[in-house]
Amino acid sequence: MESSATLPLSQLPFVYPATPRSNKAYPFWPCKRRSSQPTRLHCNKMYVPGFGEASPEAKAAKNLHNFFTYVAVKIVAAQLESYNPEAYEELIEFLGRHSLNDGDKFCAAMFRESSRHKNLALRIMEVRSAYCKNDFEWDNLKRLALKMVTESNTRLMTEYVLETSHVESEK
Amino acid sequence: MESSATLPLSQLPFVYPATPRSNKAYPFWPCKRRSSQPTRLHCNKMYVPGFGEASPEAKAAKNLHNFFTYVAVKIVAAQLESYNPEAYEELIEFLGRHSLNDGDKFCAAMFRESSRHKNLALRIMEVRSAYCKNDFEWDNLKRLALKMVTESNTRLMTEYVLETSHVESEK
Repeated sequence: MESSATLPLSQLPFVYPATPRSNKAYPFWPCKRRSSQPTRLHCNKMYVPGFGEASPEAKAAKNLHNFFTYVAVKIVAAQLESYNPEAYEELIEFLGRHSLNDGDKFCAAMFRESSRHKNLALRIMEVRSAYCKNDFEWDNLKRLALKMVTESNTRLMTEYVLETSHVESEK
Repeated sequence: MESSATLPLSQLPFVYPATPRSNKAYPFWPCKRRSSQPTRLHCNKMYVPGFGEASPEAKAAKNLHNFFTYVAVKIVAAQLESYNPEAYEELIEFLGRHSLNDGDKFCAAMFRESSRHKNLALRIMEVRSAYCKNDFEWDNLKRLALKMVTESNTRLMTEYVLETSHVESEK
């Protein structure tokens, strides 16, 4: 399902009666404001509201940041389990008491728990930095996400068509 | 805080006594198994457990996929608000009754609500595809995430040091 971000609305399959408030043939889509280009109001990008001063990319980066902390905890736990069971137990015990939803809050709390936990937190921070810089496959992430949206859209439409034809054939 | 993913554990600041279960100087870190390279067990990447058949990249792509649906709903709502208030109201009303946590479930439910909602779902699916292919700034996402991990690590350590020196100076 290929589509262009600048496709005029009139070309989209849509049954709602268009009731434009002006005589313009196409609605006005301001681009996302960039701090580096504050005066460039017209571009080919769709307007994304609701992110305030941030951007969708910043929001996604924040989520990835928390995800990298989660991955780092998994990596460190796997390392400790095999060569330092005592430290592993302490990490698991701490995980039971603290949420990993906010990675930075988790590390800050671990820093202040004890001197042993502080060093554990330092290792987790070091691993998340190394992981996102060296190990995480950014190109693969993009490839998988693009594949996912195409396949999901096709699947959703196919399922609906099959469901509807099934109902039709039963009539 | 630069670090290498292959940094030997002995170089990390860590107070736990190392009690390796074998005589190997470094723990064995199997690489993530790739379907294309199933027999290559040794690589420079850290072992990430707990993702089963999937990979951290696939997990992150799934999260981004749901995020793109959320962004597409925001984009479509902003478009409708200005030129079709009736459709906008229907979208907002549907949003009040259905969670956007799972983007595909949301679209599937919208598909089956009514013929008008079906066309709304088609537009959301078309917009999320166009958004992730054309508008989303993948390079910016990577840049922001790398910046975030470095800055967060520095900030967490600075805050801890300041806090500790404050306590020390009060003694």
